[in-house]
Amino acid sequence: MSEKVKPESVSLYPLGTAAAPEPELLCIFGTGDFGRSLGQRLLQTGYRGVYGSRSPHSCGPLPQGAQVMSHAAAAQLASLVFICIHRENYSFLETLAPHLTGKVLVDVSNNLKKDLYPEANAEYLQRLVPGAHVVKSFNTLSAWALQNGPSDANRQVYLCGNSPEAKQMVVEVATKLGFTVLDRGSLYAARELEDFPLQLFPEWRLPLRVAVGLSASFFFYVLIRDVIYEYVEQGKDTSFRIMVSLANKVFPIVSLIMLCLCYVPGLIAAFLQLYRGTKYKRFPDWLDRWMLCRKQLGLLALGFASLHVLYTLIIPIRYYVRYRLAAITISQIQKNQTDEFVTGMAWRTDSYYSMGILGFALYLVVGITSLPSVSNALSWREFSFIQSKLGYLTLFFCTFHTYLYGWNKFLNHSSYKWYTPPPYMLALVLPSVVLVFKLLVLLPCVDRRLTRIRQGWEKDGPHDDSKKSLLE
Amino acid sequence: MSEKVKPESVSLYPLGTAAAPEPELLCIFGTGDFGRSLGQRLLQTGYRGVYGSRSPHSCGPLPQGAQVMSHAAAAQLASLVFICIHRENYSFLETLAPHLTGKVLVDVSNNLKKDLYPEANAEYLQRLVPGAHVVKSFNTLSAWALQNGPSDANRQVYLCGNSPEAKQMVVEVATKLGFTVLDRGSLYAARELEDFPLQLFPEWRLPLRVAVGLSASFFFYVLIRDVIYEYVEQGKDTSFRIMVSLANKVFPIVSLIMLCLCYVPGLIAAFLQLYRGTKYKRFPDWLDRWMLCRKQLGLLALGFASLHVLYTLIIPIRYYVRYRLAAITISQIQKNQTDEFVTGMAWRTDSYYSMGILGFALYLVVGITSLPSVSNALSWREFSFIQSKLGYLTLFFCTFHTYLYGWNKFLNHSSYKWYTPPPYMLALVLPSVVLVFKLLVLLPCVDRRLTRIRQGWEKDGPHDDSKKSLLE
Amino acid sequence: MSEKVKPESVSLYPLGTAAAPEPELLCIFGTGDFGRSLGQRLLQTGYRGVYGSRSPHSCGPLPQGAQVMSHAAAAQLASLVFICIHRENYSFLETLAPHLTGKVLVDVSNNLKKDLYPEANAEYLQRLVPGAHVVKSFNTLSAWALQNGPSDANRQVYLCGNSPEAKQMVVEVATKLGFTVLDRGSLYAARELEDFPLQLFPEWRLPLRVAVGLSASFFFYVLIRDVIYEYVEQGKDTSFRIMVSLANKVFPIVSLIMLCLCYVPGLIAAFLQLYRGTKYKRFPDWLDRWMLCRKQLGLLALGFASLHVLYTLIIPIRYYVRYRLAAITISQIQKNQTDEFVTGMAWRTDSYYSMGILGFALYLVVGITSLPSVSNALSWREFSFIQSKLGYLTLFFCTFHTYLYGWNKFLNHSSYKWYTPPPYMLALVLPSVVLVFKLLVLLPCVDRRLTRIRQGWEKDGPHDDSKKSLLE
Repeated sequence: MSEKVKPESVSLYPLGTAAAPEPELLCIFGTGDFGRSLGQRLLQTGYRGVYGSRSPHSCGPLPQGAQVMSHAAAAQLASLVFICIHRENYSFLETLAPHLTGKVLVDVSNNLKKDLYPEANAEYLQRLVPGAHVVKSFNTLSAWALQNGPSDANRQVYLCGNSPEAKQMVVEVATKLGFTVLDRGSLYAARELEDFPLQLFPEWRLPLRVAVGLSASFFFYVLIRDVIYEYVEQGKDTSFRIMVSLANKVFPIVSLIMLCLCYVPGLIAAFLQLYRGTKYKRFPDWLDRWMLCRKQLGLLALGFASLHVLYTLIIPIRYYVRYRLAAITISQIQKNQTDEFVTGMAWRTDSYYSMGILGFALYLVVGITSLPSVSNALSWREFSFIQSKLGYLTLFFCTFHTYLYGWNKFLNHSSYKWYTPPPYMLALVLPSVVLVFKLLVLLPCVDRRLTRIRQGWEKDGPHDDSKKSLLE
Repeated sequence: MSEKVKPESVSLYPLGTAAAPEPELLCIFGTGDFGRSLGQRLLQTGYRGVYGSRSPHSCGPLPQGAQVMSHAAAAQLASLVFICIHRENYSFLETLAPHLTGKVLVDVSNNLKKDLYPEANAEYLQRLVPGAHVVKSFNTLSAWALQNGPSDANRQVYLCGNSPEAKQMVVEVATKLGFTVLDRGSLYAARELEDFPLQLFPEWRLPLRVAVGLSASFFFYVLIRDVIYEYVEQGKDTSFRIMVSLANKVFPIVSLIMLCLCYVPGLIAAFLQLYRGTKYKRFPDWLDRWMLCRKQLGLLALGFASLHVLYTLIIPIRYYVRYRLAAITISQIQKNQTDEFVTGMAWRTDSYYSMGILGFALYLVVGITSLPSVSNALSWREFSFIQSKLGYLTLFFCTFHTYLYGWNKFLNHSSYKWYTPPPYMLALVLPSVVLVFKLLVLLPCVDRRLTRIRQGWEKDGPHDDSKKSLLE
Repeated sequence: MSEKVKPESVSLYPLGTAAAPEPELLCIFGTGDFGRSLGQRLLQTGYRGVYGSRSPHSCGPLPQGAQVMSHAAAAQLASLVFICIHRENYSFLETLAPHLTGKVLVDVSNNLKKDLYPEANAEYLQRLVPGAHVVKSFNTLSAWALQNGPSDANRQVYLCGNSPEAKQMVVEVATKLGFTVLDRGSLYAARELEDFPLQLFPEWRLPLRVAVGLSASFFFYVLIRDVIYEYVEQGKDTSFRIMVSLANKVFPIVSLIMLCLCYVPGLIAAFLQLYRGTKYKRFPDWLDRWMLCRKQLGLLALGFASLHVLYTLIIPIRYYVRYRLAAITISQIQKNQTDEFVTGMAWRTDSYYSMGILGFALYLVVGITSLPSVSNALSWREFSFIQSKLGYLTLFFCTFHTYLYGWNKFLNHSSYKWYTPPPYMLALVLPSVVLVFKLLVLLPCVDRRLTRIRQGWEKDGPHDDSKKSLLE
């Protein structure tokens, strides 16, 4: 503990007076919405609060029980000051610097956009008042959460700062207000904390675009083959098939392709490493970015697979299906002949359904383990077992499911309407390629070389014995 | 750090002797079940333990290796004392106060009921022994968890107290016993920790009562229309429909209404704010309570929706349905006429199923994001996007699904048995109202005003320019 | 705080210079893969890094910007040293001990197998260099996670050590690298941390073996009765039933039995306690082990139940089922007679489906509450309410579901092909026994005695009044 901090300004609860501490006094600069909500909550929790304001006599309604005074006077009274002011108005704090030396300043500000300023607000504040201990915190909370107490996405408070003692003081206040605190390290992390409230699923955007693009393409492809072709060539209106039949062709295709897209970058990386003979060269940027959104790709693929399951399960209660089944039965009777039961057909369709169910079940297991609390409980070895081994097994089951669906229609000329292959054939290209390349990587000779590279071996590296004794 | 605490009593592992520290000695007051289980676990983990007892020579079986002596003698030996005594017997500790000065006292007690006493047990203890550092902890664990080690709901240990050093000592012991520690702040939080083990889903009670009430009402309504009406008017026994058909009418209705109930309080709040022209007036209590149980309302609604899905999917394997479908086919043949295929009917039913599936899928996404670990990983903006935007989209899909189910039966006179409207019409009232009012709120002029109010603007407030520069 | 640690070597960010701290210098011993990855990441994050190496001039490629020097020289410069060396080579550190006094040593090593050495690597290191402050950390991360930053299962860093100040320094570094830190207590926990990366679902192995064993046994039993019997006795090839029909007989049976296996050990424990009249005697080892894998047994049971649900829901789209239903309709017409509608049959099958759905829904609720983040949010009372009360209700529903499936086939002679009972009868034995014994335990007289025992009462214990006043 540094001598520079006077004991009375750091230790919130001096040990000797633990029995009945006088309520702590905290200072708030700024009487805007956030300042008001924060003050109200502090007072409710049992703190005393004093506002620092430029115009102490005309600053609007403040929480009952709070005092208002000039910035300098308010800062004098408390060892902890919440700076609830826009960054644009920070400059006046420079003149207050002498009054703020040794104080803990909590920067709660956010910006309206990312990268508006070269340095984080909190770092700017620290530069203005070098003698104070700046802690970035509370900025991820909404004023609503402050007024109504912690709940759901508003239970966690992040903080960062350079002084452990200053952070400890803020932790005390936050936990007393009922929040859970996550320390994100030094003030270096302030920018990350300031960007956090602005983000809206940044890592989901690329995968979502891929999903929408694939869905749209395949939808039009299927629309042309199943509705427009029928209408043009045979004059039949099958447009009602759009709602269920067509959707249920598009969803599984998109799901299968996106599941593959989770595994393609890993394969590319493996072959790059094999080719380069080292793992210490950086991958191209696009590959890095691709690898970072594999989880989102996989979860979207799971979502499409779930839709496929639901759309499949409602098939027998559809009007169209019931009508058609009844029509088949009636026509059998009218022709006075009974269709033969084909054991091969029963085998094929039952296997097809079985593969689909098992694939979907594995899919779900992989999805569940990507829930944050589950993956946190797994060791790295367990996580990669699930995501890689079980993931490839899922891909295999789902690909096999699609092959069984196709069966011998590959050879059937009538499948190729207007010379276009049925959509499931297109869907099978990528999975087949991925599975073949994965098999290649699993070949003992390739696998051994790759393992060595991943343990730090280099094709052109020094082959000294000393390295073998070092941690891999 | 206060001078009052002697170094040797605070630092569990003096830095100089880190290599082979002598096992720490801890003291336990009380030889009841909790005291015994705790002692046993401490000894197993490598601590030494000494019990303080009123009657050291007749206090029943204690864990092997533990010593027993008088309270005063035991307190002398250790710097940390677990107080495993009922609050009713705390008073004698006042006489021991001189022996306990500077010691860390861990209060593990719980009460049998809430609000039995005006102050928390730990605060009472601190008042009795003002010179000690009281830490509330371990009270959320069962004796079972202490004997068998951490698992599932027994992995976390909460603590609170006024002295950071004292808390650190307890953290050390708890982590060594294998628990994860959550610091809940100062001794002020003791009451909350003492109430925690007594709670049994307090926030679920109101939503559960609403769910049961709605289910019962709609069940009887449907029972009268579908079973009793049939029996009275046509003498048919359709009671078997209770198990599946009736249940599958009640579940979706309850689900839809409860989903609405998640969004009603937000709309009421918005209109209250618009009417009052400020957000700084408190909402009525019933509205606050309603808003706090929206998550539970939503999850119950999701539960009912899931039941609806399962009950719908088993329709085609029901004996009754198979019988009826066969009967229809047979009657067609016997009349020697085939029903026409109605494209409009196919469109309508397929759209109906599609809307239902998409609504349910969104429902699931909203439900998954309310898992604690998922919502913790979201920023506030992301969380409110999901819960509000996606939530309203879910409501829209589900309402549309129900309208498609009704279709033109609204106009059909025979739907109104005994002058009662079909239940799905009743179910549509609230969602329609909610969606209309939501649209009203989204109108640019209303939306702009509301946004300003939520950013702190007040109809009757001071309109000084300085406020605009403050954080919103 | 000990005097032995010089302030400048502990406090990463002396308070006075918080504004613009010079980048911290960290030392890494070992230039293997882990050392290189770690160094690269430290440099990227803004630290300065210096490697200590046995052969500073021939140690292969190092991250750009890092210096290399002899171990002694490198250790001199930094207050924190990462020991990225295999345990086998630790011995040379003993000679460096004078240079490492007062330094923080971070032991990142893992072993290739459990229990290779009598003491943990970190404890061995502490013994070699008694004057240093050893912290075990970073060993659960892969080199990959170090190079690419935290994600999913690689977001958490565990640490343990005897010196709080040394741990705080490592916490600072880890949070700055972007990891979340979990303190596991004193160096005593090092062995646990070193075993963590080696584990591959240890607690799932026994339950998985049980699941595979049960599945295989029942599969062969059903295969003999449904396929081989048909072939031998009637010459029919029904082998296609393997894929769906047989699987859908095996899954629910295994699920029901495994659900029971979750509750059997609790019942055995209760009867043991009743018989012994005390809860302070240890249970036999096999019972302890059984109780510890109840969660995994239950989740596997839920998995099998989900497969049963999916296999059931696809029944109506199977070729075999459609064929059979059409055949029945056709035969009715050809015989020119219509089957009677049997209300009792409708009641029975609908009840059967209803019980199944409700049982599965409760099953899901119990499963969801065993997600780590959900169970952490529950109090002990809530968790045991769900797992025990709701769990037994689930068991009851599922057992009743199976009885309704059987109905009067128990009495039907033709069910006993080759004198074997139908498999669902075998499945009902254990649940029935468990439910009967549970009812026994719930009898007031038994329940009262058991409650007293669990609160610490002993048949042969001292009956002194003092105990009544102590915490139970």
